[in-house]
Amino acid sequence: MFETIRWREGKVEILDQSRLPLEVVYLSCREVGEVAEAIKTLKIRGAPAIGIAAAMGLALGAQSLSARDFREFQRGLRGIASQLAATRPTAVNLFWALDRMQAYAAAHREEAIEQIKQGLVGEAQRILEEDIAVNRAIGKWGAALIPDGARILTHCNAGALATGGYGTATAPMRVTVEEGKRIHVYADETRPVLQGARLTAWELMQDGIPVTLITDNMAAQFMRRGMIDLAIVGTDRTVRNGDVANKIGTYGVAVLCKAHKIPFYVAAPISSIDFSLATGKKIPIEERPPEEVTHIQGKRIAPEGVQVANPAFDVTPARLVTAIITEKGVFRPRDLRRLADPNADLETIRIREAPHTTR
Amino acid sequence: MFETIRWREGKVEILDQSRLPLEVVYLSCREVGEVAEAIKTLKIRGAPAIGIAAAMGLALGAQSLSARDFREFQRGLRGIASQLAATRPTAVNLFWALDRMQAYAAAHREEAIEQIKQGLVGEAQRILEEDIAVNRAIGKWGAALIPDGARILTHCNAGALATGGYGTATAPMRVTVEEGKRIHVYADETRPVLQGARLTAWELMQDGIPVTLITDNMAAQFMRRGMIDLAIVGTDRTVRNGDVANKIGTYGVAVLCKAHKIPFYVAAPISSIDFSLATGKKIPIEERPPEEVTHIQGKRIAPEGVQVANPAFDVTPARLVTAIITEKGVFRPRDLRRLADPNADLETIRIREAPHTTR
Repeated sequence: MFETIRWREGKVEILDQSRLPLEVVYLSCREVGEVAEAIKTLKIRGAPAIGIAAAMGLALGAQSLSARDFREFQRGLRGIASQLAATRPTAVNLFWALDRMQAYAAAHREEAIEQIKQGLVGEAQRILEEDIAVNRAIGKWGAALIPDGARILTHCNAGALATGGYGTATAPMRVTVEEGKRIHVYADETRPVLQGARLTAWELMQDGIPVTLITDNMAAQFMRRGMIDLAIVGTDRTVRNGDVANKIGTYGVAVLCKAHKIPFYVAAPISSIDFSLATGKKIPIEERPPEEVTHIQGKRIAPEGVQVANPAFDVTPARLVTAIITEKGVFRPRDLRRLADPNADLETIRIREAPHTTR
Repeated sequence: MFETIRWREGKVEILDQSRLPLEVVYLSCREVGEVAEAIKTLKIRGAPAIGIAAAMGLALGAQSLSARDFREFQRGLRGIASQLAATRPTAVNLFWALDRMQAYAAAHREEAIEQIKQGLVGEAQRILEEDIAVNRAIGKWGAALIPDGARILTHCNAGALATGGYGTATAPMRVTVEEGKRIHVYADETRPVLQGARLTAWELMQDGIPVTLITDNMAAQFMRRGMIDLAIVGTDRTVRNGDVANKIGTYGVAVLCKAHKIPFYVAAPISSIDFSLATGKKIPIEERPPEEVTHIQGKRIAPEGVQVANPAFDVTPARLVTAIITEKGVFRPRDLRRLADPNADLETIRIREAPHTTR
């Protein structure tokens, strides 16, 4: 099994996703700048994975800080965090991970700087391990929504490659298969960066999960022909009211699901939920370079000088989301805000079975 | 201005659309087999254009027939027609054009074979000229539906390149611009063959019509943000009840238009209407090679051995079609069947203005 990202001998090793599925190559980062560049250029992507990469990047950068006292060290950390935070604006896990790493340092301010540096490496590795555990829990809760024989549509890659491992949207699929049930996945290729074609199809094939690759514009027709039973996607940032930011095209999938009475699920680790925002309107949407649309693997496919739009994400309103699958259970979007309260009684609001559809 | 296809000095010259927008190269066909291959491999595509190509291909093939009498000549023509008919199953214009050419020959059976051969070349050229005239009429009727400042979504290429010239879906846009109104076109790139990115964007830029290229999965988000006022697409085959077969992804656009209360128009020359079919269920849908999905311009973008679906067309049910724009006027889908009757009083069923939307 491949690893998306790992700490090895003082370096951050990143599976270079820009070269998948043609080559499986690890990028070895010795400096925080290389990690930041890898995030910016999508060599590693997916909200949880870039959270982990940012944490490891911060730990890596911390090793080179020559601070005489904690305040100086903390200032140094803050600078590194700014550099990493500037890579991509939409996924909230990035900021969550950087905050957690800096909080770790602050909590250990009494220790020797060298000891804190070691501790940060450990904390980054813990974030990775916890991420995988969270995904397994998402899988367990989500699998209850998937009937035997289900044909599942997914968009972009919210799989093992988008996380520390196991994936978010793919976790319920994996658990379902581990339980001995049969499923078939339809993977949208997900233009412009083709995460579905290059990554989701590849990682599901690695694990022997049946998958059919389709272009984004085919999904509607497969729904109409009754060939899709449910959709599961990931999220880069979900907010308090249940609005979901995710890869461009997700909103369209949600509208199509509604029109065809197909359940639309979002797999969301709590770290991807931004309780500070009331609705999706305030989520910053990254506009990426036009070359992602006009070129594919370096080859021009559109006329020179053509005007292009390239928003990397869209926001799906909560009313189109059937349920949100977290590591603490499956919830209706309107109940999501209750998760912000650590004392909330989740048992009463958890969904245990697939919500009825009128199909 | 480019020509999509032309008869020149005993040869059929075809603008090779598989090389656009990078190169403007004409393919010179001396034998019917070359024309058939050009249709099959999408060097020329678009329902009206492949109708013209088939007509010219038949005229070209006819020149090489060495028949002693008309019956033998007719058998030869029938063989050539079968070869051309086998290239692509969905567009009805192909069959319409081959029928018309053979009917021409039959109507002139008393003439000398050499004279009929010349006549067939003339008939093919007439089909091309009439196609352009039909498109101009579509443009005139359709322009009445387009307000000043309209932002228009289109899918695939139903432009000059898909026809003898001027286009079907693009005709109302061109007339609107000729009338001095401002428009802005959003062109879906249209995976897998990228007709929107490679052809529609290119031909609109050639004519100075403002166009923004987007990936197919962005359209929903632009609708949600209120940036699309109407959609116009072409059709490969529309049937009696108003069901519309067109490029894969068209159905999804229609569902999204409905969900956002945006008018969805289909530009359809009468030659693309198949009055012999009652509903869209019987329209044969071409499944094209998986390499169109797994490779782009010869470069692999998906894992080796991945399972792929590649239906080239989908069927949009009449209930999602706001109106159909023909050379005889704009009609509701339910009134389409009346066009089969040459004595029908079309005045009473013609739509003169943009149908009210609840937007």
